Amino acid sequence: MEHIKDGSVRAILANAGNANACTGEKGLENARLTSEWVAGELGIKAGEVLVASTGVIGAQLDMDRVEKALPKLVKGLSPEGIPEAAKAIMTTDSFPKISLSQGEAGGIPYHILGIAKGAGMIMPRMATMLCFILTDIRLGTPELKRILSSSVEKTFNRITVDGDTSTNDMVLVMANGLAGNGVLNKADHEEFQRRLIHVMTDLATMIVKDGEGATKVVHIHVKGASTGSDSTRAARIVANSFLVKTAFYGQDPNWGRIMAALGRSGIHMEERDISMWIDGVKIVEGGLGTGVDQEKKAAEKMAHSEFSLIIDLNQGKYEDQIVTCDLTHEYVSINADYRT
Amino acid sequence: MEHIKDGSVRAILANAGNANACTGEKGLENARLTSEWVAGELGIKAGEVLVASTGVIGAQLDMDRVEKALPKLVKGLSPEGIPEAAKAIMTTDSFPKISLSQGEAGGIPYHILGIAKGAGMIMPRMATMLCFILTDIRLGTPELKRILSSSVEKTFNRITVDGDTSTNDMVLVMANGLAGNGVLNKADHEEFQRRLIHVMTDLATMIVKDGEGATKVVHIHVKGASTGSDSTRAARIVANSFLVKTAFYGQDPNWGRIMAALGRSGIHMEERDISMWIDGVKIVEGGLGTGVDQEKKAAEKMAHSEFSLIIDLNQGKYEDQIVTCDLTHEYVSINADYRT
Repeated sequence: MEHIKDGSVRAILANAGNANACTGEKGLENARLTSEWVAGELGIKAGEVLVASTGVIGAQLDMDRVEKALPKLVKGLSPEGIPEAAKAIMTTDSFPKISLSQGEAGGIPYHILGIAKGAGMIMPRMATMLCFILTDIRLGTPELKRILSSSVEKTFNRITVDGDTSTNDMVLVMANGLAGNGVLNKADHEEFQRRLIHVMTDLATMIVKDGEGATKVVHIHVKGASTGSDSTRAARIVANSFLVKTAFYGQDPNWGRIMAALGRSGIHMEERDISMWIDGVKIVEGGLGTGVDQEKKAAEKMAHSEFSLIIDLNQGKYEDQIVTCDLTHEYVSINADYRT
Repeated sequence: MEHIKDGSVRAILANAGNANACTGEKGLENARLTSEWVAGELGIKAGEVLVASTGVIGAQLDMDRVEKALPKLVKGLSPEGIPEAAKAIMTTDSFPKISLSQGEAGGIPYHILGIAKGAGMIMPRMATMLCFILTDIRLGTPELKRILSSSVEKTFNRITVDGDTSTNDMVLVMANGLAGNGVLNKADHEEFQRRLIHVMTDLATMIVKDGEGATKVVHIHVKGASTGSDSTRAARIVANSFLVKTAFYGQDPNWGRIMAALGRSGIHMEERDISMWIDGVKIVEGGLGTGVDQEKKAAEKMAHSEFSLIIDLNQGKYEDQIVTCDLTHEYVSINADYRT
């Protein structure tokens, strides 16, 4: 927070395995010291270094290991190092997450490259994830900040694995201006944001796909809500329900559990107005099941590794989407065994 | 709701396996019809019959089976039938839940006998549970209602298995006055409520013990909150966290996850003021871990089938308790397989 204030950063040091969270004053000192060490090695200012930590909460960093690793890390810096960096930040992730988009502004090409890590403790605002995005576009800090914030809202703030928010998370965009483009017009801005959202959606979906123990990615789409917050709330409650998520795992179009989750969400709804579809197969109409045949068809759709659940509340014009995953035996294994 | 309005009930018909929820007008008609059939068999009024259904949501009752079963059920009525009734209302429960308390009012003995069912979809207000309590005390309907409501708040509304509230739940107390006691004085009232709370706590704890797949019962006690709602909210968020519950299962005193859950609860807290104990073993002091030795001791406590987690926020004088269980492989098995 201290170092990001002025909007300028030249280096990130990320460590995986230890979150440096709930470590008190000593943890803060260690973070500052790490920045100084990195700055010393690179010949830049400590305020230009960001530190990102992810892993177990409540343990102090092993500063000897950090200090010893630094010269080698700096020596190994290379434009080809991105895939290695994407691997290095993994904790319970099973695969590295990288996404790239290339655009043009006034005939000048630019790039947006993002890497991310995250698999559990995933829930909006924003959860145990780190995402570093590099772009060579030339764009002012206030504009970049505005575009980033609204893009996070549409991407990383619309996924969940287990509803457990984290002590540690970060989405960072660094723009160095090397593309050499001129001042962006409105269309350029829009294209840049579209591409940024594409990269972030890509990474966000990878995080859910890699959700701890997940075997299925489910796109939950709530429409017909009477307010925007109703649509978001309904989608989140359904997306985080233990019972809905185990039903996804069991490939069971158990719409009663979805209805129960909607019922406890506190949104404005009328049971008899609700319709639901799984990958286009209608399983609920007017608050009632559409029958065994339809459920059988829906169960077939749920055998796929990715499907959608559309809930139409039929109360108004607002809608929202959350990407979630199923709750599996493997999730329990990972989290009962992690750490000890 | 129609039949309970006047406060007088003489019979309950409960069925397990089908919740008769989200079944629209036809479901409501079936419920009314069932009451009429029961009333006919017993020679009482339909308005004196309550129906309670629990099980799969969204399927219509098989009315033929209900109709055929009734004469046999009525013929089988017996004062010794309570244990059988406790068994008959089970769904995913693994054992019947019965509790009894005997008291005296003005030298006259009375009894409070409760049966309950519930194992999953358990979360305050009140979840997939049925609880029928019979007492022979003589007590007016308004007083009984007041005592029941405040007792539910302290018992069934303070447990959770998975945070999923239900479409179906009921706690009912029926008092027939056969004890023949006179008007109760203040001490009698207090004793009755204490005994009722004892029976309800007993049943509520059994529900958590029998939580789907649960291997551990955990008593979460949040104290030192600045408001009453903060203490309740903090206890509930911790009690329902996927990650805290899997850590309980793994017997891992992973207080970082508890801290993370508190952090997202939105309550007033200061990390550096927080202390935590597991069965009397201090694992956090001033927001920091107390070290590996203490964690090892705490892990030993967590090997038991029941233990407490005390969280002192050190912000004020409010406190609350929630009883929860761990999240296990078996929970996932039960709920991925239930229904299909």
